[in-house]
Amino acid sequence: MTKKISDKKFDVIGIGNAIVDVLSFADEAAIVSYGLNKGSMTLVDEARATTLYKQMGPTTACSGGSVANTLAGMASLGAKTAFIGKVKNDQLGAIFNHDMHAVGVHFETTMMERGPATANCLVYVTPDAQRTMATYIGACSRVSEADIEEHTIQNAAITYIEGYLWDTETAKAAIRKAITIAHKAGNKIAFTLSDTFCVDRHRDEFLELIKHDIDILFANEMEIKSLYQTKDLKIALSKARGATDIVAVTRSEKGSTVLTSEKTEDVPTNPVAKVVDTTGAGDLYASGFLYGLTRGWDLAACAQLGNRCAGEIITQIGARSLKPLHVLVHNAA
Amino acid sequence: MTKKISDKKFDVIGIGNAIVDVLSFADEAAIVSYGLNKGSMTLVDEARATTLYKQMGPTTACSGGSVANTLAGMASLGAKTAFIGKVKNDQLGAIFNHDMHAVGVHFETTMMERGPATANCLVYVTPDAQRTMATYIGACSRVSEADIEEHTIQNAAITYIEGYLWDTETAKAAIRKAITIAHKAGNKIAFTLSDTFCVDRHRDEFLELIKHDIDILFANEMEIKSLYQTKDLKIALSKARGATDIVAVTRSEKGSTVLTSEKTEDVPTNPVAKVVDTTGAGDLYASGFLYGLTRGWDLAACAQLGNRCAGEIITQIGARSLKPLHVLVHNAA
Repeated sequence: MTKKISDKKFDVIGIGNAIVDVLSFADEAAIVSYGLNKGSMTLVDEARATTLYKQMGPTTACSGGSVANTLAGMASLGAKTAFIGKVKNDQLGAIFNHDMHAVGVHFETTMMERGPATANCLVYVTPDAQRTMATYIGACSRVSEADIEEHTIQNAAITYIEGYLWDTETAKAAIRKAITIAHKAGNKIAFTLSDTFCVDRHRDEFLELIKHDIDILFANEMEIKSLYQTKDLKIALSKARGATDIVAVTRSEKGSTVLTSEKTEDVPTNPVAKVVDTTGAGDLYASGFLYGLTRGWDLAACAQLGNRCAGEIITQIGARSLKPLHVLVHNAA
Repeated sequence: MTKKISDKKFDVIGIGNAIVDVLSFADEAAIVSYGLNKGSMTLVDEARATTLYKQMGPTTACSGGSVANTLAGMASLGAKTAFIGKVKNDQLGAIFNHDMHAVGVHFETTMMERGPATANCLVYVTPDAQRTMATYIGACSRVSEADIEEHTIQNAAITYIEGYLWDTETAKAAIRKAITIAHKAGNKIAFTLSDTFCVDRHRDEFLELIKHDIDILFANEMEIKSLYQTKDLKIALSKARGATDIVAVTRSEKGSTVLTSEKTEDVPTNPVAKVVDTTGAGDLYASGFLYGLTRGWDLAACAQLGNRCAGEIITQIGARSLKPLHVLVHNAA
């Protein structure tokens, strides 16, 4: 199980929102009073972000962004990764930039000198350790075709994209360009549905993408049900099976389910002693899964490492592990 | 034990460095290679801060600053507090400002529109949970007499000052002004020695201050030994006893020792299951101690709450508790 599927320069290149998360604990009543959807991400403009931030409790800030979290996790596991995403040359941009390089992610997208500030995501962690998010997309919205480095896409075994990017037209164009380059080079495309509301906003386009362009799909139970507009997980999973080569559905404490046209495999996970903050659980699952995949592991082993990475990040605040993750690799596969 | 020593508008006003901490885990060899003093704070200029930051691992950012941490802790316990300190109107300044207001600290010092950036402190947490710090003092150095609000100082039972402020001349002048106002109003002055290297830089002035101006002195074992230039804690404690009204010496897992001219009292602390990061232990000890003091508790009860607050913060990353501390009050005193 040590055969790699690729000897490319990069195992994975990701394209995603470049965001600094600002986390605080909050109770459920506060989430309701702010008009946010518990467990989901709401896009907010600068004015609303400012108002929400003023009402927020004491905070801690960590780099975030779904695909960026996955790549940071993969790099910490020992993979070679690259990231494309847009920050401004401001203090939050410097933090985001630092945290990518500190863990060894190749990240050379030109910083903006003017325009909207580096994106931030207000993350409210409720007593059940669930996270609710309000994102000011800021500089992220400016990622464009010009930022897609053809050479880097060609030299990555997998190109990984987040559904959240579908919210801006320039980013969508950038993604389409990346997909075209990757497919021409014979590389794989991985995609995450990101969020149920994101699926609601872009269901038809996502279904088309999955059918034609995506090789590996990540979703959680809520997202896969939303995609197929059913409340029945079994129906959603049966529709997902064979929708593309590999579909990996995360299922919280139940672990994950991996679907291919040949089979459906439930991969359980170990219970976590104390869940502090579930922010990044899905992102870090993808880290472990993609790490295994680019090393030629079987899918159950990929899912096991994914489960393990998710289990680790939910014991910490934020979606980036402050401690190296490579120790998690040894017991997997 | 519910008699308050004051019915002033504020229990404590603090004057200190307004800093955002940037924390990362590091091993001891790295600390040595960076030329830093393990367990202590080193002042660095912007160029060195930039170099050190580039070499640092993935980070998390939390508001910090010694006296600011103490006030945030006191506010979380339920006290009325005010802070004077200087930030720039930049993103880190906004974070610092937010975190003070979020916990209910009165903080109205005018933000700088020009000049050096908001201060940041690179905090390296070693596997033994100790912290080593490199501080770029930035905007903090600009706090001046003009920032000392006479009315606020008059209306606070205790004015609390950090030794670190002695590193800049304008801050020193601000402190002298605050001490004069406080004493004229019949209020108390509390002071923390901050750090052994800080004591080395300003020993003679600190000894004069303690003799003439300070009513309550906070120190840890290393600092009190440094102040009296002895390696023997007993000698240091005997010299500290009676040096001013109250001397509280924190002693890590041994709890703390409180000295007055009448007696020396050791106040033990409960062991902590898992120490994650000792950043802020001394600062939060002062939160608990001053909270009790402004409520008329006896000194052992003040020290017990101090120990309890310190015990709580070392289970978290950073020096600001993300969860309210007032629950700690009920079991104390």
